[in-house]
Amino acid sequence: MNVGGTHYRTIWLDDDGRSVRIIDQTILPHRFETRVLTCVDDAVEAITTMRVRGAPLIGATAAYGICLALNVDPSDQALERARASLLATRPTAVNLRWALDEMMAAVSKHPPEGRALVGHARAAAICEADVETCRRIGVHGLPLIRAAAHRKRGKTVNVLTHCNAGWLATVDWGTALSPIYHAHDAGIPVHVWVDETRPRNQGALLTAYELGAHGVPHTIIADNAGGHLMQEGRVDLCIVGTDRTAANGDVANKIGTYLKALAAKDTGVPFYIGLPHSTIDWSLPEGLGRIPIEERSAREVTEITGRLADGSLATVEINAPGSGAANPAFDVTPARLVTALITERGVCPASRDGLLSLYPERAATAGGAIIP
Amino acid sequence: MNVGGTHYRTIWLDDDGRSVRIIDQTILPHRFETRVLTCVDDAVEAITTMRVRGAPLIGATAAYGICLALNVDPSDQALERARASLLATRPTAVNLRWALDEMMAAVSKHPPEGRALVGHARAAAICEADVETCRRIGVHGLPLIRAAAHRKRGKTVNVLTHCNAGWLATVDWGTALSPIYHAHDAGIPVHVWVDETRPRNQGALLTAYELGAHGVPHTIIADNAGGHLMQEGRVDLCIVGTDRTAANGDVANKIGTYLKALAAKDTGVPFYIGLPHSTIDWSLPEGLGRIPIEERSAREVTEITGRLADGSLATVEINAPGSGAANPAFDVTPARLVTALITERGVCPASRDGLLSLYPERAATAGGAIIP
Repeated sequence: MNVGGTHYRTIWLDDDGRSVRIIDQTILPHRFETRVLTCVDDAVEAITTMRVRGAPLIGATAAYGICLALNVDPSDQALERARASLLATRPTAVNLRWALDEMMAAVSKHPPEGRALVGHARAAAICEADVETCRRIGVHGLPLIRAAAHRKRGKTVNVLTHCNAGWLATVDWGTALSPIYHAHDAGIPVHVWVDETRPRNQGALLTAYELGAHGVPHTIIADNAGGHLMQEGRVDLCIVGTDRTAANGDVANKIGTYLKALAAKDTGVPFYIGLPHSTIDWSLPEGLGRIPIEERSAREVTEITGRLADGSLATVEINAPGSGAANPAFDVTPARLVTALITERGVCPASRDGLLSLYPERAATAGGAIIP
Repeated sequence: MNVGGTHYRTIWLDDDGRSVRIIDQTILPHRFETRVLTCVDDAVEAITTMRVRGAPLIGATAAYGICLALNVDPSDQALERARASLLATRPTAVNLRWALDEMMAAVSKHPPEGRALVGHARAAAICEADVETCRRIGVHGLPLIRAAAHRKRGKTVNVLTHCNAGWLATVDWGTALSPIYHAHDAGIPVHVWVDETRPRNQGALLTAYELGAHGVPHTIIADNAGGHLMQEGRVDLCIVGTDRTAANGDVANKIGTYLKALAAKDTGVPFYIGLPHSTIDWSLPEGLGRIPIEERSAREVTEITGRLADGSLATVEINAPGSGAANPAFDVTPARLVTALITERGVCPASRDGLLSLYPERAATAGGAIIP
């Protein structure tokens, strides 16, 4: 993705061939700064504090976190310590576990002295694959937007999205936003309603920044507004991402997604999920009550950082003094509210059968099925 | 309601017997300051900028706005000018029109020289009636919370509310919060989930402040969180207010109410509306597509004011630079999502028949019925 004329990914190997660079997403879009990660603790900190966030990018960062550990100490014990500390950073996105499993499978069969090289190769491959996966989500999602444009006889297609599932949430392209970028690039008139996505405002900050940089027309709205816009016929389709998809098509995504899915169902607006295979948790027969929901700091609700008139950043308290807050970070949208899943292999119904139609190799284990 | 040991209403006649005092709600809870209104333009400004807000309090302020006009010039022309400028302040809450109609009916039949006295008496009576109306909403709503406590065998009843429909939205007591205050005062253990209510955060600021001052346990949540809490069984009932109720029980309330009503329906949580008769628009057969929805400034979405570490107030920008915003201020919740209406006359289904069971005198005109 272009930032001021330069092509960026969200994570890459630094010039020394050992360290890793990320874009610090906690200060975007106020400032664009990259940050170097030199050890596994740096990677843990970056994921925990959400300098990197978004399920696919969390996975990619965890993969490189293993590399940073291997650079220093490739022993079994150090490898296991690195894996455990990375796995503990965030509980909801399953890409984290997926990426760590991929890395462990790749490196642990080698003797310690060969692990760093193998690990770096595998992490780089995970990142390359993520870019291609996200590109293909866009290719498969594009016809859905094209069909909406056709129904509207060329009038602007209004897409609502929640949180950030764009290139900043992945290595490049994005999941939910990839079809939107592909549609815009294909000349289809698209306008995006951007849920600001409290409490961390990834919509108003990151999604709006991304769309603006790519030239896609968009309007920020309070998270409360989407239902009303759907009632008024001002939303043609919704596309969001997911942090973990159960084998039956239930999706855990940023808190508030469930509310938008309910409104879409009530008003007849299609509700799509863009996802790479790595967010599918085949071990879960369903998502409701089974996907762990991260509870984050109350301060994310009661404090907010923004730009003062002079451009400097300041943090202000926005609660009644003495009133506390709760901050569940994700919710689960039942598959019955999802029109379809858009994956790198194509579009399918949000159901076990739908997913297995695209991933038949999972038939034996999907949804916790017991193998006789 | 008590503020630091002193009993306050939200609006009252000042010591000079001519001016009107309000609490400036734009700087609550950071600072508690009262403000004097000396002319009708002051009243218009106070309503437009939301120094006073909440459907019943908007009505009371409009009533006193007429008095402020009559103090200076009681002529037909001045009276009509005052009425028109007050009516134009905000389009959604019907209490505004109701209060102005009440005032005009009371004063216009008198010759100009007698109008100020009559007007002041009528405005005072509107305020007194609002207090008693809201108290009775609490009396009628209390058994619903008591029944929930009974079902939970005395465990804490968790109530979710949206925006502020407490004493700050009325002259005293509140509409949605009145049953909660009555329950708390009756010794029923109540805890309130307070939707922060973006973009103006009336929940995190005003509702949390009110509940804290009254000693009611509460927790602020992002507007996105309520659906998840309902899915988890952590909400026993919802109570919200309304700015305009159609004759069929559709309710226009603060943007985002519709989303919570959908979640309540989906999860089997009762969804109640607290309302005085003055928010019922008997001329509207239904609310969807018929109640005018105010569009407010984008800056309410892209800027936010809060306390810096030193306690001073600052306004920060919280959007991606260059990204605009839309700000519809209300949405309409269809009656089918509402469990019951709680009025000063009792509890009824959200339907034409339900409303007419409490207000039989409206049978001839309710819902735009054509009188033969």
